[in-house]
Amino acid sequence: MKSIRIYDTTLRDGVQGQGISFTVEDKLKIVKVLDEFGVTYIEAGNPGSNPKDIEFFERVKNIKLKNAKLIAFGSTRRANTTTEEDANVISLLNADTEVVTIFGKSWDFQVTEILKTTLEENLKMIYDTVKFFKDKGKSVIFDAEHFFDGYKQNPEYALKTLEVALEAGADSVCLCDTKGGAFPMEVYEITKTVVDKFNTEVGIHCHNDNGMAVADSIMAVQAGAIQVQGTINGYGERCGNANLCTLIPNLQLLMGYKCVPDENLKQLTHLARFVSEIANVTYDERAPYVGKNAFSHKAGMHADAVNKNTYSYELIDPSLVGNSRTFLISEVAGRGTVLNAINEIDPTITKDSPETKLILDKLKEMEYLGYQYENAGGSLELLIRKVLGKYKPAFNLKEFKVIVNEPSVNSVNSSALIKVEVDSIEEIAAAEGDGPVHALDNAVRRVLERFYPQIKEMRLTDYKVRVLDSNSATAAKVRVIIESTDGKDSWSTIGVSTDIIEASWRALVDSIEYKLNKES
Amino acid sequence: MKSIRIYDTTLRDGVQGQGISFTVEDKLKIVKVLDEFGVTYIEAGNPGSNPKDIEFFERVKNIKLKNAKLIAFGSTRRANTTTEEDANVISLLNADTEVVTIFGKSWDFQVTEILKTTLEENLKMIYDTVKFFKDKGKSVIFDAEHFFDGYKQNPEYALKTLEVALEAGADSVCLCDTKGGAFPMEVYEITKTVVDKFNTEVGIHCHNDNGMAVADSIMAVQAGAIQVQGTINGYGERCGNANLCTLIPNLQLLMGYKCVPDENLKQLTHLARFVSEIANVTYDERAPYVGKNAFSHKAGMHADAVNKNTYSYELIDPSLVGNSRTFLISEVAGRGTVLNAINEIDPTITKDSPETKLILDKLKEMEYLGYQYENAGGSLELLIRKVLGKYKPAFNLKEFKVIVNEPSVNSVNSSALIKVEVDSIEEIAAAEGDGPVHALDNAVRRVLERFYPQIKEMRLTDYKVRVLDSNSATAAKVRVIIESTDGKDSWSTIGVSTDIIEASWRALVDSIEYKLNKES
Repeated sequence: MKSIRIYDTTLRDGVQGQGISFTVEDKLKIVKVLDEFGVTYIEAGNPGSNPKDIEFFERVKNIKLKNAKLIAFGSTRRANTTTEEDANVISLLNADTEVVTIFGKSWDFQVTEILKTTLEENLKMIYDTVKFFKDKGKSVIFDAEHFFDGYKQNPEYALKTLEVALEAGADSVCLCDTKGGAFPMEVYEITKTVVDKFNTEVGIHCHNDNGMAVADSIMAVQAGAIQVQGTINGYGERCGNANLCTLIPNLQLLMGYKCVPDENLKQLTHLARFVSEIANVTYDERAPYVGKNAFSHKAGMHADAVNKNTYSYELIDPSLVGNSRTFLISEVAGRGTVLNAINEIDPTITKDSPETKLILDKLKEMEYLGYQYENAGGSLELLIRKVLGKYKPAFNLKEFKVIVNEPSVNSVNSSALIKVEVDSIEEIAAAEGDGPVHALDNAVRRVLERFYPQIKEMRLTDYKVRVLDSNSATAAKVRVIIESTDGKDSWSTIGVSTDIIEASWRALVDSIEYKLNKES
Repeated sequence: MKSIRIYDTTLRDGVQGQGISFTVEDKLKIVKVLDEFGVTYIEAGNPGSNPKDIEFFERVKNIKLKNAKLIAFGSTRRANTTTEEDANVISLLNADTEVVTIFGKSWDFQVTEILKTTLEENLKMIYDTVKFFKDKGKSVIFDAEHFFDGYKQNPEYALKTLEVALEAGADSVCLCDTKGGAFPMEVYEITKTVVDKFNTEVGIHCHNDNGMAVADSIMAVQAGAIQVQGTINGYGERCGNANLCTLIPNLQLLMGYKCVPDENLKQLTHLARFVSEIANVTYDERAPYVGKNAFSHKAGMHADAVNKNTYSYELIDPSLVGNSRTFLISEVAGRGTVLNAINEIDPTITKDSPETKLILDKLKEMEYLGYQYENAGGSLELLIRKVLGKYKPAFNLKEFKVIVNEPSVNSVNSSALIKVEVDSIEEIAAAEGDGPVHALDNAVRRVLERFYPQIKEMRLTDYKVRVLDSNSATAAKVRVIIESTDGKDSWSTIGVSTDIIEASWRALVDSIEYKLNKES
């Protein structure tokens, strides 16, 4: 089985993505999880262009890496100067990593039109800079920027830049599709030419401007590249870099290459979500392998087929990448789909048990009212518990009142009053908020804390609203979905009503009931 | 220049995506924009499996299409029955489209393990069903489900399913990577085999489970396929279908194929956002070509290079797909579209007029607050009128109060009181409703009718809510979009606030103001 070196650049090229920035603390955390996961290289910063990275490289020395090698990234020296006089080169040296990656231009157009120097001087810049770091005892990877665009316009010059880097002692060369416009077939052919011509390790670095970053990387591997650069979740400038969360399962589970230990691959979904949390970027649930939807089956026929044989509509067993199969409980869902959820509560129930029919009938009734449980596992579990008699109501609502004022009174525009009864004890509370739902949310937590102090552990992390049958306009039904967490688990609940306050209320109540039933 | 037929299945396979569902109204709107855009085929529903689609196919007959042909999609007949007895086949026939697409299994494993029938019977099912529709005078496209998986395990049988469909008279065959696990090189080789073997038009239909849907489609085209199936924004089951918003610019702008008229390609960004708004799905700003980030340049060096020469880091001129490099809201529709909106109010204004800059600055400010005018033309027109001094406020709000009661009082759960001032005359009114927004809507109409009787002509037809920054949970900002009609025109307006009542109120006010300003 051929080994592929995974070269992660989330912390360097990834942060070029819009809205992505990491503190030094963030970067140290991500270095640790990437190392645990088992990538070969972690390109962690550009100390020449980013002063924050200088601090990072200082602090990262305290972390003992088990698998990965840390890389500092930087440019060739500038034109018409010496490496020793170039501040960026010196910063890169001071980062004090065992491996450095030097990028230089391989496209003649970029040399003459952007760097505004001669083709000859550019070759010297590459040679001098690689040689400088080799003389300092570093391993050096040469990143051939714009290699594919360059090769298509002037193949001799593009190849010459590689030749010069290797003459200067570079340990490997990486072909970069910097503009992200290369197509799979040409990447295959051009990479093959390089692999055949030079006796060195070849790497690939792709951008996704034409949606081909992962495909191009795979074609390069098929042509003989053995080092693949990319980022977690495909973060990166413009449309991003090759997404390692797609690339690694493709290579390792479908194509038979070895990237990381099989056992570690199970960390992948967690890793993707973890980095997304730190980056504070909305997670792509439709992402191959690691998205929630990747193993969701909505169409009834497909869901039935998956129950017959998972191989029929799934590429891999989702647990191999730490993901799991979610069945969407839609109006077309078959009996088998619901059974999986029932069995998590009572494993003795079969598809022919009378309870199963009762639950399906109840689901049908609720779906008719606009409920949809595909993204509301907490409410689905409560519904099943109710039918099975495994549910205990946490409180009775006596009443609530929500008042919205425009203009605001003392800068508060919404307030809520709520009265509940628990074990024959009545309690009343009030709270204010940004809008009526927020006020009600605050009030119900306050009134229940007396009875259930563990409610303090719980917080809402997401609130979504969808209008159903929206052509009934403001009298339309709305569906609210809430996500909650208590730090250990997270769960989703749903409420439907023509009144958004009531729909929100129902989802809120389910969220609280789920938390309390889970622990009872 | 070789022509490629674009086959859109947003309305059929797209709705298999999690969280995606369209009303019949929504579908009719999308049919119109796809037709304007110039796709060849619009696969719009599966009347056999979805009763809502029967109503759709009835109503779509009233739309005169300029470019596209409508397609109804359905399965081959079931095993051991006749086409005439098969309810799904009859529903498909009743959809009454000129073209139908019939899908059948091309993977032996799926036939024996999932359909639980014989390989021989499956061939008869394909033959009979295609023949049935040919005898009724239809054009028939045969979708060879699981073709690539099938070919890899049993090439003779996979090819035989195509042969049988063609013998029965199918006008073309489409090779489907239903599980989404095929890789570019094998798609190229297998498609080439089919193209070489059969004298027919070959199509390609890819899913994105390994991130290859667009790459595989391109490889199939390079191997000779001339019909490409996909969806707007790549919506579809699990990880989605081939994204036409990536595929079309790739084929037409980088590879020299002809998909839609060049001029129409400028609608692409607008189309992508429009469908995303209707689907109520978060827009992917990192998407190739149509995302906001696709032409944004964060790294200082890259931004400098782009300033020197856009070719250095951009694949195409963003205006070719209706996108732009400067990131105003106007980028959404493009500066030209905003100018069109301005010119509807004042035809003398040009793109260099100072008013244009003022309006663009205002749009940018509003977008920063969470407004988006893509699907809110009424509010956009009001904003322009305000900047141009061509706006007269219809009323001043003095105050409103909305009260929500649970349990309901005499079966009314919400009531609203409102006080306004028009030409120094104050008026107060109250109304009840299904939920607070409905109560407020009823109250504001009632209080304004005294001054503006024409408000009675107007009614709201659509009400959509989107939570922005949803991880602030119930304190998050919400964006409300309302559609209104007065029987002659219809218009959309927007409101944004952390309070859903206030966001709804702003959209409501814009809706009323639009109506009254339009007539003044």
